[in-house]
Amino acid sequence: MPTLVTFGETMLRLAPPTGERIETATQLDFKTAGAESNVAIAASNLGVDSTWISKLPDSPLGRRVTRELRSHGVEPAVTWTEDGRQGAYYIERGGDPRGTNVIYDRTDAAIRTTTTEEVTGAVDLETTDAVYTSGITPALSSRLRETTASFLEQAGRAGATTVFDLNYRSKLWSPSEARSCCTSLLESVDVAVIAARDARTVLDRTGSDEEIVRELASTGDPAVVVLTRGADGAMAVDRDGRLHDQPAVAAETTDPIGTGDAFVGGFLASYLDDRDVASALAYGSATAALKRTIDGDLAIVTPEEVRAVLENDGGGITR
Amino acid sequence: MPTLVTFGETMLRLAPPTGERIETATQLDFKTAGAESNVAIAASNLGVDSTWISKLPDSPLGRRVTRELRSHGVEPAVTWTEDGRQGAYYIERGGDPRGTNVIYDRTDAAIRTTTTEEVTGAVDLETTDAVYTSGITPALSSRLRETTASFLEQAGRAGATTVFDLNYRSKLWSPSEARSCCTSLLESVDVAVIAARDARTVLDRTGSDEEIVRELASTGDPAVVVLTRGADGAMAVDRDGRLHDQPAVAAETTDPIGTGDAFVGGFLASYLDDRDVASALAYGSATAALKRTIDGDLAIVTPEEVRAVLENDGGGITR
Amino acid sequence: MPTLVTFGETMLRLAPPTGERIETATQLDFKTAGAESNVAIAASNLGVDSTWISKLPDSPLGRRVTRELRSHGVEPAVTWTEDGRQGAYYIERGGDPRGTNVIYDRTDAAIRTTTTEEVTGAVDLETTDAVYTSGITPALSSRLRETTASFLEQAGRAGATTVFDLNYRSKLWSPSEARSCCTSLLESVDVAVIAARDARTVLDRTGSDEEIVRELASTGDPAVVVLTRGADGAMAVDRDGRLHDQPAVAAETTDPIGTGDAFVGGFLASYLDDRDVASALAYGSATAALKRTIDGDLAIVTPEEVRAVLENDGGGITR
Amino acid sequence: MPTLVTFGETMLRLAPPTGERIETATQLDFKTAGAESNVAIAASNLGVDSTWISKLPDSPLGRRVTRELRSHGVEPAVTWTEDGRQGAYYIERGGDPRGTNVIYDRTDAAIRTTTTEEVTGAVDLETTDAVYTSGITPALSSRLRETTASFLEQAGRAGATTVFDLNYRSKLWSPSEARSCCTSLLESVDVAVIAARDARTVLDRTGSDEEIVRELASTGDPAVVVLTRGADGAMAVDRDGRLHDQPAVAAETTDPIGTGDAFVGGFLASYLDDRDVASALAYGSATAALKRTIDGDLAIVTPEEVRAVLENDGGGITR
Amino acid sequence: MPTLVTFGETMLRLAPPTGERIETATQLDFKTAGAESNVAIAASNLGVDSTWISKLPDSPLGRRVTRELRSHGVEPAVTWTEDGRQGAYYIERGGDPRGTNVIYDRTDAAIRTTTTEEVTGAVDLETTDAVYTSGITPALSSRLRETTASFLEQAGRAGATTVFDLNYRSKLWSPSEARSCCTSLLESVDVAVIAARDARTVLDRTGSDEEIVRELASTGDPAVVVLTRGADGAMAVDRDGRLHDQPAVAAETTDPIGTGDAFVGGFLASYLDDRDVASALAYGSATAALKRTIDGDLAIVTPEEVRAVLENDGGGITR
Amino acid sequence: MPTLVTFGETMLRLAPPTGERIETATQLDFKTAGAESNVAIAASNLGVDSTWISKLPDSPLGRRVTRELRSHGVEPAVTWTEDGRQGAYYIERGGDPRGTNVIYDRTDAAIRTTTTEEVTGAVDLETTDAVYTSGITPALSSRLRETTASFLEQAGRAGATTVFDLNYRSKLWSPSEARSCCTSLLESVDVAVIAARDARTVLDRTGSDEEIVRELASTGDPAVVVLTRGADGAMAVDRDGRLHDQPAVAAETTDPIGTGDAFVGGFLASYLDDRDVASALAYGSATAALKRTIDGDLAIVTPEEVRAVLENDGGGITR
Repeated sequence: MPTLVTFGETMLRLAPPTGERIETATQLDFKTAGAESNVAIAASNLGVDSTWISKLPDSPLGRRVTRELRSHGVEPAVTWTEDGRQGAYYIERGGDPRGTNVIYDRTDAAIRTTTTEEVTGAVDLETTDAVYTSGITPALSSRLRETTASFLEQAGRAGATTVFDLNYRSKLWSPSEARSCCTSLLESVDVAVIAARDARTVLDRTGSDEEIVRELASTGDPAVVVLTRGADGAMAVDRDGRLHDQPAVAAETTDPIGTGDAFVGGFLASYLDDRDVASALAYGSATAALKRTIDGDLAIVTPEEVRAVLENDGGGITR
Repeated sequence: MPTLVTFGETMLRLAPPTGERIETATQLDFKTAGAESNVAIAASNLGVDSTWISKLPDSPLGRRVTRELRSHGVEPAVTWTEDGRQGAYYIERGGDPRGTNVIYDRTDAAIRTTTTEEVTGAVDLETTDAVYTSGITPALSSRLRETTASFLEQAGRAGATTVFDLNYRSKLWSPSEARSCCTSLLESVDVAVIAARDARTVLDRTGSDEEIVRELASTGDPAVVVLTRGADGAMAVDRDGRLHDQPAVAAETTDPIGTGDAFVGGFLASYLDDRDVASALAYGSATAALKRTIDGDLAIVTPEEVRAVLENDGGGITR
Repeated sequence: MPTLVTFGETMLRLAPPTGERIETATQLDFKTAGAESNVAIAASNLGVDSTWISKLPDSPLGRRVTRELRSHGVEPAVTWTEDGRQGAYYIERGGDPRGTNVIYDRTDAAIRTTTTEEVTGAVDLETTDAVYTSGITPALSSRLRETTASFLEQAGRAGATTVFDLNYRSKLWSPSEARSCCTSLLESVDVAVIAARDARTVLDRTGSDEEIVRELASTGDPAVVVLTRGADGAMAVDRDGRLHDQPAVAAETTDPIGTGDAFVGGFLASYLDDRDVASALAYGSATAALKRTIDGDLAIVTPEEVRAVLENDGGGITR
Repeated sequence: MPTLVTFGETMLRLAPPTGERIETATQLDFKTAGAESNVAIAASNLGVDSTWISKLPDSPLGRRVTRELRSHGVEPAVTWTEDGRQGAYYIERGGDPRGTNVIYDRTDAAIRTTTTEEVTGAVDLETTDAVYTSGITPALSSRLRETTASFLEQAGRAGATTVFDLNYRSKLWSPSEARSCCTSLLESVDVAVIAARDARTVLDRTGSDEEIVRELASTGDPAVVVLTRGADGAMAVDRDGRLHDQPAVAAETTDPIGTGDAFVGGFLASYLDDRDVASALAYGSATAALKRTIDGDLAIVTPEEVRAVLENDGGGITR
Repeated sequence: MPTLVTFGETMLRLAPPTGERIETATQLDFKTAGAESNVAIAASNLGVDSTWISKLPDSPLGRRVTRELRSHGVEPAVTWTEDGRQGAYYIERGGDPRGTNVIYDRTDAAIRTTTTEEVTGAVDLETTDAVYTSGITPALSSRLRETTASFLEQAGRAGATTVFDLNYRSKLWSPSEARSCCTSLLESVDVAVIAARDARTVLDRTGSDEEIVRELASTGDPAVVVLTRGADGAMAVDRDGRLHDQPAVAAETTDPIGTGDAFVGGFLASYLDDRDVASALAYGSATAALKRTIDGDLAIVTPEEVRAVLENDGGGITR
Repeated sequence: MPTLVTFGETMLRLAPPTGERIETATQLDFKTAGAESNVAIAASNLGVDSTWISKLPDSPLGRRVTRELRSHGVEPAVTWTEDGRQGAYYIERGGDPRGTNVIYDRTDAAIRTTTTEEVTGAVDLETTDAVYTSGITPALSSRLRETTASFLEQAGRAGATTVFDLNYRSKLWSPSEARSCCTSLLESVDVAVIAARDARTVLDRTGSDEEIVRELASTGDPAVVVLTRGADGAMAVDRDGRLHDQPAVAAETTDPIGTGDAFVGGFLASYLDDRDVASALAYGSATAALKRTIDGDLAIVTPEEVRAVLENDGGGITR
């Protein structure tokens, strides 16, 4: 089993029933979510030995998070603290034209003070096949900008495949802040994942998606650049400069949140197994499609289910 | 802030979960609803100072209604009584071909005995910018036919913009009863709202929708005639005889009930602000589309959300 | 009122909310289901005097089943026993590409030991208009293979219309087991119902659906052969060799499980009334479409609702 | 199996979760209830062949009632009508000092117009062992005063044991109205059931409970007079003038509503079996205690459970 | 109607079902709560014209709070801001020996920066009969210490009755911090409310409860000192130095949180009406007992219900 | 951290809401439970490194079990199989005199075929501080009788403290079967736990509890004998023959199931730490009392909470 270590914030997820509004709801679904734990969970469910590094308040709220991660087989490597909050987010799901609204409540989250030592002391990078974090982590504090950079650098030096997803969040920082922080990270990691929209908004890229992914792949020396394109699927340029174009797998969507993380988790589960970009894109897309049928951020799926989707054998009634 | 006064019955709304049937359900969602309070609530949520006039039983059931209205910022101007019931309706929502079934339980509702004095004594019409009621109110009792007519007439004389929505309900009266009661009301108000279907069924109009709205606008002297056309949007003829054609805003529908009231509430919020029919139609359509994504009769929306729909910026994920 | 007797297993149905997964759910909807009681319930709701024969454990779980059947007007004719389990199934509903997954938990079900005497002693076949069972029943035990055959044979001899639905379940037996057991049953009953897919997989038929249904109708001497075709509707060849082609009625689907049983229940309610195949196909299709809008296996519908669908008058809002 | 026929109104029962108030609740539990169906259901669950006579609106709400009765094995003998409402009641349960508050919504209930012919035409009184109704039925309309009296009289003449429970409801009529209607009924039936409190308030009796029950037994010629005494249990004087004193069975109460009906249902199940008053009192008390542990009006209990209580073997954990 | 103005923080209240733990729960009840709005709501429900002053984030979470207050008839006088969080608290209710655990999540709450001008500009103190705040407010920030003191002082100068409840929260500050801040406030207000436990822990008082309340009443010049004593009720010394001893009203407790605020709200509703301390104590105790039977912090009660408790007429079944 | 290995069956736990009956419920709470995993979970939550050995079907139902165990920090050491069912139990909770009823549905459970090799191959007994199983395990099949005996024997030889709880279940086997199987196990383990009731019913012991525990301690050579006495607490005789008498800790009970397992889990968490029997009895009793306030079988508690109970500091409101 390949090993994956992710680093980031996991929040409590508070959601009124679909169709209800936060201003008037009287019941909330209570789950946990965060890009880096979402990826760890998707990968774990698909056969990767996954560890998640973070800092949490030593309280029932913090323990709520580690319990849920453990239930998906992810090992929490947590620095427990008396300082800082357990972050949360409220989510209202509604069909178009209302869409899905996320209200972050992550002020003063415990993770904001995490040091490089706390991260690298939490796991043995020498025995780690890959590490992952996203642009959300450095967006949370200046301390985390340093820690994120050091984490990726030390992991790379220890021989781990480094994976970074730009994952721009307009509610956390501006495009220019994100650009100045993330450009060098994207150029130095082994696998860079970028949403086509963010490539334009944050990285100021122009042209067709294919032009953008090729241009991104030609800068710095990442082994693989993956451009996620929403309903258009994903494109990637591999180490050898070959372009791979993966259409999205159609899905009847119950909850769109977490689709991108499910894609990355599925991509990594496949990529860490055989280092083949084309099959990893397909595996990630199938995982993402399955996730969209599931309530919450998490890809609670099995390898058999992903396989059935890839073999066009999903859906319908199985009995 | 413009002021709006509406007059009508508000019921308890009892709904099994979508997919369950009343004959076998064991849980009901408990909300309140009624065309006139729906309009007041939509308008209030969009910045109108709204008051709702009615008569209610002095019981927890009656107070359930005023509490919910207050939570949306609507001021209840209620005559409390020991006589008459708190009306209710049961609603079963189902996809096609089953559709949505409404079972009224409004026999002997307290509102049926409301007199003109009770209505006009409840508010100061001199400081009211607009009043609204619908064809449901006179359908409830012969007493209410008188009261409705007096209310509109006195409001008009006091200088308020009078708004009447035909809102035909086949479970309450026959087309001919509705026609004989409502024709003169429609011709004397400042803004008449009529569903295209009702124009044909109740008012015996024929021809294209455009022909119908133009013909309705040429009868009597209403300033504005609005023809609502379901999935085809709405058409209106303004004071100057200009026709405005507003397509519907597409929506993924969770609950279709209350769409028309949300349209009117949105229309009025805009119209009372600047008296422009074209922008009021657009504002109403956006409000109606948002409402369809929300469970229950009520347009629990913000001006910002309506604006985002008008700017084609609704939907997707906001985070 | 025509009388119908069905024979088969009814299970407890345990379902997490749509969008939740069994591996992580904390709440289950608790209903009952089984092809033969589903058919009896659909027929009962549509005006047939229905009885359901089975064997159940003498426990709250067994009584849970008979209570639910009684609530739909179906008379349970049950042999109560201390031996054997109350079967159950878990069902996860998800949009495509995940689809609906059924996990049977019917090992050692009490019904497995049912003898011909227990079945024929439970009802008076002489006063029964029709009997129904499906291929699920003989799939449950070798004892039930005998009992099923005897039941159909004795019912036929007593003058009842015999109805058999192949209803192949790959989780219960192999195609060849099903074929060797069911071929003679299909050939000897008065009405044979076969899914087009099963005709190919189990009965090794090839060619177009029309070719298949014609060929099946020419073997043995069933009066009527009905080929169900999913989204393509159903085809039937009647006693006189005439082919009837019934398109499916479109439906917004909440729960696809039980559609086939609703079709058969509706078909029989109409067919037992006037023995007309064409109108029975239409009635069955309308019933099936309504069922798809309802949560659970059961067609909780009224004759008025079926009629409204047939008259293209279903859907929308009724108020 | 003895046969029992009851006659009365059954309502929809709408209850917010315990601890929530009707004025603010957003969810309601949806059950059905009514003294006469409660008694029929308790008796049916304890082995009596029970039928319930009533008049209901021909609507999903009316059918909701018959479905629930059928699920408990009670046969509904219903006159379906287009006139009149389906009655309902809202119930708020709260611990002391708040207590349980019942809000009736039974205005214009369909049952109000029931004639003697409708009642006696619904069942075969000649084959009926016992009939039951309560003082609630004549309280609903003057028509029902006549019908109730005729029903009891004709049943008595047909040889059935007649049972009448005074069951005074202050929200329906005044003590003097109740007294003038019920006194002769109580004196002419075979079994009269009276709450000690009602004997004082309605029947103007004074003295100790024992004095009251003895005095009531000496008036008219009822075979048996049962005085129910809340936490003090019940007392009865049998045909031979012997007094029986039954203490209440202690219970941890989840829902007190329906306790009295459960007592009567249990009493009758035993009494109709062997005509022994002492054992019927004990059986009724055990049934009533079990009912208090169950949510809703209904005694969903088995003879085995009643027996375990009588043998002091209830409670604890059974596994 | 007397008018009351309260000033303080209102939080979102997130509670798993009773018996579930936060670490494992998947559903939360979603209400709002805060000492000062709890008091305003209790008083409003009992006939006082109540306004609540606070500062809230301009978000659905902030609007969630004002909607709930409005539903109880309380007018929110809110400074909307982009800075600071909407506070929340998680609550786990469990029987003894576990008890009720409150987890505050009020870091960086928007209210922390509220200035005297924002408070006094929000209402017209000249027309205010009474103002109320508690020791929780100054515990939230040093800015609020100033604002609280000014608010009470200016209200007093404007002629309002000033009411202050010490309401010590060990999770917010130490006893010595509370003492140094609150001592002068307690001595300068018109009505001081102090829990007997806090009088000992925070104010270092010793002796019997009677000795303590007498001693507190002799310091500074408050008109009334109320000592709340949990299960022992409350004691007060009035303006004339008379001691009043009010036993607690027994209650079957569903939710103990908010009992003290309900007591104060009830006390004020009575006291502001007739300035009689003895009857205000009784009224407050009855309100507090009713609150304990209700889920959540809020005294959702009517004057009739309080009266019934005072007349020993509460509890049981009312129908 | 001490290490504990337990071996036994874990079931799905299906429970209608308190107050509802299985025969009529429509919703079930879905948890997992089993004596041996309950003990492992209690111990894990209290700081023991716990592993649970079992055999499960390779299905979502089996994985449901391991996910829940992992969420409590227990490592599942599972043999996955295609043979055998995932056991379940239904539980109805009701106050006295109804009590709690458990309906086992564990026929043909996958664990029944577990061999000694599967058990001992699953963990490293050399590094295990203690092993635990209960009399439920050998009651499930004759194969398990062998496996249980071998497991305890080999664990003892490897140096682990062996713990056996008689845990008699009358629905699984007779007293004499249990006696003949368990007597030698009880005599050979290091810690024997026996309910006083089982000592009488199964082991035929007589006399006072103290006499019984002393006599049991004098047979064979167990180091410690613990006699659990329900509401009377527990007694134990330690290695040195000293008797320890621990009263029960009073608790307001939400769910009594799992109390005994919580006691053992708490006992072991303390005993494995310092081998002191008296403090282990106290720690176990406190854990058991906390468990009774929690819904489900599991002691979801923290060491801090247990400590607060031991210091008489639990209960009330903490804020």
